Amino acid sequence: MITAFRKTAETFAAGAKALAQQYFVSPEVFAEEQDRIFSNQWVLVGHQSQLAEAGDYFVAEVASESLIIVRDKGGEVHGFYNVCRHRGTRLREDRNGHLSAIQCPYHAWTYGLDGRLIGAPHMDQVPGFAKADYSLHAANLALWEGFIFVNLEDASTQRGGYMSLEKWFAPLAGKFSHWNLPKLRAAKRIEYDVKANWKLMCENYSECYHCPGVHPMLSKVSPYDSAENDLTEGPFLGGFMKITKGAGLTMSGKACALPVGKIENLQEVFYYSIFPNMLLSLHPEYVMVHQLWPQSPERTLILCDWFFHPDAFNRSDFKPKDAIEFWDMTNRQDWHVCELSQQGIASRAYEPGPYSARESIPAAWDEYYLRQIS
Amino acid sequence: MITAFRKTAETFAAGAKALAQQYFVSPEVFAEEQDRIFSNQWVLVGHQSQLAEAGDYFVAEVASESLIIVRDKGGEVHGFYNVCRHRGTRLREDRNGHLSAIQCPYHAWTYGLDGRLIGAPHMDQVPGFAKADYSLHAANLALWEGFIFVNLEDASTQRGGYMSLEKWFAPLAGKFSHWNLPKLRAAKRIEYDVKANWKLMCENYSECYHCPGVHPMLSKVSPYDSAENDLTEGPFLGGFMKITKGAGLTMSGKACALPVGKIENLQEVFYYSIFPNMLLSLHPEYVMVHQLWPQSPERTLILCDWFFHPDAFNRSDFKPKDAIEFWDMTNRQDWHVCELSQQGIASRAYEPGPYSARESIPAAWDEYYLRQIS
Amino acid sequence: MITAFRKTAETFAAGAKALAQQYFVSPEVFAEEQDRIFSNQWVLVGHQSQLAEAGDYFVAEVASESLIIVRDKGGEVHGFYNVCRHRGTRLREDRNGHLSAIQCPYHAWTYGLDGRLIGAPHMDQVPGFAKADYSLHAANLALWEGFIFVNLEDASTQRGGYMSLEKWFAPLAGKFSHWNLPKLRAAKRIEYDVKANWKLMCENYSECYHCPGVHPMLSKVSPYDSAENDLTEGPFLGGFMKITKGAGLTMSGKACALPVGKIENLQEVFYYSIFPNMLLSLHPEYVMVHQLWPQSPERTLILCDWFFHPDAFNRSDFKPKDAIEFWDMTNRQDWHVCELSQQGIASRAYEPGPYSARESIPAAWDEYYLRQIS
Repeated sequence: MITAFRKTAETFAAGAKALAQQYFVSPEVFAEEQDRIFSNQWVLVGHQSQLAEAGDYFVAEVASESLIIVRDKGGEVHGFYNVCRHRGTRLREDRNGHLSAIQCPYHAWTYGLDGRLIGAPHMDQVPGFAKADYSLHAANLALWEGFIFVNLEDASTQRGGYMSLEKWFAPLAGKFSHWNLPKLRAAKRIEYDVKANWKLMCENYSECYHCPGVHPMLSKVSPYDSAENDLTEGPFLGGFMKITKGAGLTMSGKACALPVGKIENLQEVFYYSIFPNMLLSLHPEYVMVHQLWPQSPERTLILCDWFFHPDAFNRSDFKPKDAIEFWDMTNRQDWHVCELSQQGIASRAYEPGPYSARESIPAAWDEYYLRQIS
Repeated sequence: MITAFRKTAETFAAGAKALAQQYFVSPEVFAEEQDRIFSNQWVLVGHQSQLAEAGDYFVAEVASESLIIVRDKGGEVHGFYNVCRHRGTRLREDRNGHLSAIQCPYHAWTYGLDGRLIGAPHMDQVPGFAKADYSLHAANLALWEGFIFVNLEDASTQRGGYMSLEKWFAPLAGKFSHWNLPKLRAAKRIEYDVKANWKLMCENYSECYHCPGVHPMLSKVSPYDSAENDLTEGPFLGGFMKITKGAGLTMSGKACALPVGKIENLQEVFYYSIFPNMLLSLHPEYVMVHQLWPQSPERTLILCDWFFHPDAFNRSDFKPKDAIEFWDMTNRQDWHVCELSQQGIASRAYEPGPYSARESIPAAWDEYYLRQIS
Repeated sequence: MITAFRKTAETFAAGAKALAQQYFVSPEVFAEEQDRIFSNQWVLVGHQSQLAEAGDYFVAEVASESLIIVRDKGGEVHGFYNVCRHRGTRLREDRNGHLSAIQCPYHAWTYGLDGRLIGAPHMDQVPGFAKADYSLHAANLALWEGFIFVNLEDASTQRGGYMSLEKWFAPLAGKFSHWNLPKLRAAKRIEYDVKANWKLMCENYSECYHCPGVHPMLSKVSPYDSAENDLTEGPFLGGFMKITKGAGLTMSGKACALPVGKIENLQEVFYYSIFPNMLLSLHPEYVMVHQLWPQSPERTLILCDWFFHPDAFNRSDFKPKDAIEFWDMTNRQDWHVCELSQQGIASRAYEPGPYSARESIPAAWDEYYLRQIS
């Protein structure tokens, strides 16, 4: 079956070309993406392990909006706009922490962890004022495999495109159950500020045609031409690549932790892009997840987390740096060529060039993307 | 009488809400403010004590214009556009100093302190050239209580709204005579670069509803609910607050200088906002004055001066730092919450919230402001 | 003859005024200049001595375009857009170096020094792909007196204004032969980032009315009123100034190298502006060349090279620093007053003032410039 899928993709790629210049440099296209994609589709903001206890929170930036992602006393996770209902003040400045309630630093209006206004000094003197009318504004929020997604789409102005997270991920039901994703815990986050359009990183992630020149170390342990893709069209794209026998995707070449779950074949690594902003890299003993946050047509913030089995952390064979350093190096190699592409694409001499047969997934990614914004 | 006025204001505030988002973020609104308010109304630029001698000058930035404020040999104060009449060169770069004439650094055209062109090498060879045609361009300038105001409105294109500074300040005639304002001298200037719209600082200055949470030290020496406002609508707004017996608005809590004038009640501090860019804080022994200079919708430069009686400077009980440190701390607390408000107000989730009864003056300020730009 | 020409220029200048504000601050005018002038006329990018060997290259930035200027194995010099034909990647990041072929850092597509695609992994599997269709895009490039010029005008969309570099420079044929320009070698390059419109530097270069006040040292060794202009209208403008007997345009006042050629009069220095971006300053023993690169209405990058006779470099009397320091100081004096002009011209109070009789060449420069963009 996998082979059959791959052929389809390669057929599609024949004749396919890279995206036109406007998609990488135009502020209008960027605004449309922020509106149609990042403000109206499910986007990854984190993992439930970041909110172990009631009152734990972190702040996420989605389409220029600051959201407080917080676990309430009943265990439910919410996403609140980080904006006081009184005079609009930003409520939380720090990127994460622990709270018993959400109090505005300006005039001390106070909200419960479920967003209800529970304190507003002197407002009882204002005729007609009712606390119930001034709960924090909330974004749609749901979990998939332990990952937290939000969707800023306003229910009152839905364009007919809204679907629940469960329905959105239905095609992937059960696919990743071996990796124990809901249980995992992150050992490290690295933040990258990349001077390139976010789509260049999606395209870059989706092919290994560039690996021989860009990633000499990765190419040694995972042959660039070993890719077998099983998801070849739509919002979820990717497949697996082989890991050379006796090698591993770490600096030392050895496993750096116990397996994350019941992994059948330890010589495979799976790479999937989850449209629009999640890159999910499933290794036998760790899972790497990239979040992509477009800041402008020419700039993207990337958060990269490395997840391990919770039991791995206390064992003597736990060497997370071995994996983190390997991918930090590889990430930076990728961002560098993406930045070079951004520079060249801005030229009046740029014309979309032909994709090779080894770039069928970038071609499929482009094709799905184009359907979102036109 | 004061009580009566206060009631009016509180009545007004009932039902009043904060300004809409556009007034804090829109470049178009900002441009309109720069045009209708900062380029066509009287704005504070300094105090006559900065120009003790003929030839003393300082440079002021008003609505993107650089002005040379200079005292001429007859003692008159002028405001000249800092632009040579030959090829437009900026004449003075330094922020203040002393001059016998204004000479252009490029081709040495030279102007008297009254703005007349008095030297222009080789221009006598140009047929029809007359020095009298090339005086420096001047802005309207006048003094009130020793403070220097300019108005960039061009007499030739007056929109009917121009009025003399004297007429503008007529409603306040005699009100501040006890404080000896024309005689005072500044001991210190601090410049603040605040990432917030200028109106947020005006609103912030106009209420003490925020004091308990934001200013713990100020709240101890001056109860937040002691405000009595006597100017409650129009361009001049404010009143006084009580100072706790045995306390003072200094770090030590003691008076830091001799009184600035014949102050009747040493347990009162008066706060007035003078539209658009002056905040006048009258303490028994010092006067603090803020100048607000909008740089963009999201950024304001604030100059804060501390003035004392000229006789105070040479006395052993003169401790200006005691007051300056107190307010520098308090200023920074205010700017911080204003910056947080700027951030939150930019959100799509922002809606103007209801003002409390303790925010009648911000509501009155907003109301006057709205009449200027619509 | 020279006197006759000079009179013409002075007649023209009578009544002439500086350019209007828009030409110095408007983004629209800037865009039009980038289009009509810097993208459609011959502009200086360097000198052939920078490319001594086949494979030597440097990168030039022209009208926001990055070009690889490279000498091929046949000795010919090319200007290629620095953009891979596959996915648009910037090919070379470093500013200069040596190459045997041009290989893309992303997917290893490889081009010969003549721009032909000679390697493209896996592309033979793409039906219909032919390497011949994917040569690097080239800009028009030609040499004059050893200087390298490019013209980005696209032959396919020529507006009828295109002319060969040879024809463009025909009016100057033989004029500079004494200075041996093709043979010279640069001893030094200094890069200046100037916060002023590029035209201010052109105007500044074109008159010495400013010299007494701005350049005290230069004025001592070369009288500001000694200019005799022989090119007084059109794209090439300038003439010579006298060098005081026993003096020289160096810090020491003495010659710093052997003469660049058969110079008849060692007491003369020639200054010519070559529209749009070359300022050519011919001294007896060195040639200084400025390249002007507008970055925005308010900012210009300036490259300044000092060229000497190739035989000068190995002699004991070679003291290039003596000339470089002299002009680096003088350059910075000029940039400073240009920056002051930029600031003042942005004022609403700016009006173009009258040029003096000593500013006939700036007036002629303005006049030619205005014909290019209207």
